[in-house]
Amino acid sequence: MKLSLAKGTRDFPPEEKIVRQKVVETLRGIFELYGYSPLETPIIERFDVLSSKYAGGAEILKETFSFKDNADRELGLRYDLTVPMCRYVGMNPTLKMPFKRYEIGQVYRNGPIKLGRYREFWQCDVDIVGCRDVVADAEMIKIADDVFTKLGFEAVTEFNSRKILEGILDYAGIKEKEKRDAAMVAIDKLKKIGADEVKKEMLQSIEEEQADRVLKAIGISGKDAVAKLQKIITSDIGKEGVEEIKTIIDYLKAMNVKSASFEPSLARGLAYYTGPVFEVYLKGSEIKSAAAGGGRYDKMIGEFIGGGKEYPATGISFGLEVITEALKLGNKVYEKSVTKVFVIPIGTLKESLKAVQKLRSAGISADIDMLGRGPSKNLAYADSMAIPYVIFIGEDELKQKKVKLKDMKRGDESLIGIDEVMEKLRC
Amino acid sequence: MKLSLAKGTRDFPPEEKIVRQKVVETLRGIFELYGYSPLETPIIERFDVLSSKYAGGAEILKETFSFKDNADRELGLRYDLTVPMCRYVGMNPTLKMPFKRYEIGQVYRNGPIKLGRYREFWQCDVDIVGCRDVVADAEMIKIADDVFTKLGFEAVTEFNSRKILEGILDYAGIKEKEKRDAAMVAIDKLKKIGADEVKKEMLQSIEEEQADRVLKAIGISGKDAVAKLQKIITSDIGKEGVEEIKTIIDYLKAMNVKSASFEPSLARGLAYYTGPVFEVYLKGSEIKSAAAGGGRYDKMIGEFIGGGKEYPATGISFGLEVITEALKLGNKVYEKSVTKVFVIPIGTLKESLKAVQKLRSAGISADIDMLGRGPSKNLAYADSMAIPYVIFIGEDELKQKKVKLKDMKRGDESLIGIDEVMEKLRC
Repeated sequence: MKLSLAKGTRDFPPEEKIVRQKVVETLRGIFELYGYSPLETPIIERFDVLSSKYAGGAEILKETFSFKDNADRELGLRYDLTVPMCRYVGMNPTLKMPFKRYEIGQVYRNGPIKLGRYREFWQCDVDIVGCRDVVADAEMIKIADDVFTKLGFEAVTEFNSRKILEGILDYAGIKEKEKRDAAMVAIDKLKKIGADEVKKEMLQSIEEEQADRVLKAIGISGKDAVAKLQKIITSDIGKEGVEEIKTIIDYLKAMNVKSASFEPSLARGLAYYTGPVFEVYLKGSEIKSAAAGGGRYDKMIGEFIGGGKEYPATGISFGLEVITEALKLGNKVYEKSVTKVFVIPIGTLKESLKAVQKLRSAGISADIDMLGRGPSKNLAYADSMAIPYVIFIGEDELKQKKVKLKDMKRGDESLIGIDEVMEKLRC
Repeated sequence: MKLSLAKGTRDFPPEEKIVRQKVVETLRGIFELYGYSPLETPIIERFDVLSSKYAGGAEILKETFSFKDNADRELGLRYDLTVPMCRYVGMNPTLKMPFKRYEIGQVYRNGPIKLGRYREFWQCDVDIVGCRDVVADAEMIKIADDVFTKLGFEAVTEFNSRKILEGILDYAGIKEKEKRDAAMVAIDKLKKIGADEVKKEMLQSIEEEQADRVLKAIGISGKDAVAKLQKIITSDIGKEGVEEIKTIIDYLKAMNVKSASFEPSLARGLAYYTGPVFEVYLKGSEIKSAAAGGGRYDKMIGEFIGGGKEYPATGISFGLEVITEALKLGNKVYEKSVTKVFVIPIGTLKESLKAVQKLRSAGISADIDMLGRGPSKNLAYADSMAIPYVIFIGEDELKQKKVKLKDMKRGDESLIGIDEVMEKLRC
């Protein structure tokens, strides 16, 4: 048998998993700093939950891995973390509101494989259920700001409200629902295909004058963008959108958000968004895809659960694949090894074990040669593992109650006591 | 549609996930302290990998969830973390040895559900591949010692060598392979069913005199157990086992292991163990199942990969379900909330946002009311979320440049500056 991976799945060897864990820990740390609690839902869900009409829709369902258990119950692998959250909220009617949770884990799509698209990949979602005020949306933008700052990126969070876009469609005089939907789908592609192509696509369903009005309005940018839009947006929903954006800008100031920008062309694909939407882009990175994105979906959970109760909600999802890829491309420095020091006993295994335990007790990650290899083989091993320090312990060192510490980067060696080593490596 | 979970799966609500994360972080921290690197393998594997004859065997394969992808390729959900590791080693022939890795993640069994048995559950495995010396086995025992000490348990790691058991079977004069296997299976049940039942089971395949000899030998315990066994174990493999145990005891002393005990009756079920085996039990806990277990399997990886190369290996697996259950039963104190303080604005949302951000910048997990609820509703919410502190910020407080801090446990309130709050909550 030739050993291989299932198509669209990956192994993450230590040097990659270390980076992924670093990103996940950063996300978790910031989510918890903002009072979001961890939730774990299963990867296996009942197929009827995954295929409920308010879940992902036909497109995603087509790509759902499905199978049966030993009693012929139909099951599937979750395709996102939103549907399991909706199910959790629905099954726990006494849940205190607002419910602020994050979940980080694998999701599955039995679909085509392309560059950057996999069948098993991670999602990192943070959501708040039960808050109608856009202060919650502002918090999402602030969280993104913190995450990318902490990870060492220059990033900008673009935000808009779907209500602004509704107002722009009203301004352009587009009335029929299908035409409005078609225009929205075209607008969503602006970053990818440019204004000319968006116009071409819009012309398939609306008049040229209407398309020009839409393009002019979504092209408004800069400091006085809101004031300019306020002049042309006159419908009720559009005005609501303008108020939302003004309020968010106020909150962002109070929260001292560094890098966010109102972008009237931002649409986000998914149909379920009802208010503010946001997407994060990395500045100066080769990666052009959004590194995070989300928005408000006030109707979806209630419709999923049924029974008429409303669950206003907003959230943001961070792209672990995009972020780790960008970290690699940007040569952001991360430790490639979990191990700080490698102990090489020279005929002194038992005494060296005591030394390595002393280091570990002090919280210093330490490994030790267990194969009885010679110094040069051990040095080559430590080097290949990117371990920054090596310690030699031979009979001579034992007699002197010292060890020989080698800095693998600088190459220099020093004969010092184990306590000095601890002092040195701890910082 | 009535919302429900797939059979044998669970949601972990925040208060439970916080404990599970705490355990996982403790494990990860200690694994990395000992120089083990994280590895992530996919949850989906090719069915031919999972069903390879050297993988889990017929019993486990019967309980493997299987399905097909969109091109009719046969896939399955992994039933353990060992088979994916073997596949990874096989697919990466240039991997540097020893390969010290840990993996923590979900595994699946499409089998019967009982108390404590699930269809989706976590395994936490740490293994070293490429080291024949039992110093590696001693390290596993030391890791277990550290883990349970850190988690606040009194635990004991029982250890033995399969070679000791082989020596005991030789001492009892049991020659035929089937009889030896049957005796080993019976011995493995000693803790569960007691000596009388083990004897009854053995009598189905061996003579009473033989059974008595086995029971006498595996019943040897105490400080001089090794010396006593050394007198009756005379076969080559048995002598090897005695040497192994002596060497391990030496290493355990050098590593300052607190709580480990040689236990000649310890067999461990799985057929693939070839040398030292170990199991960890919690003292004074209602939970009688092992909280961790493992052993040496020098042949399995080589046989799985094929090609004749040997991969000596040893490892230990920690039971996340047992450990979290024991933590709950033992009333070990863990924080039930990720949030340290809940800010209640009284008509001062924007100014309160500034205060909450100040706390977060100082690394203090802080949440804020976004629903504009009154103080008593907010207090009830903070209480139900087990948040230890609450801050009120009204117009009065703003004027005095102070906030009102309430200790939810003690009930007392104090009017202090936000910097003092930070000082107080940081420690």
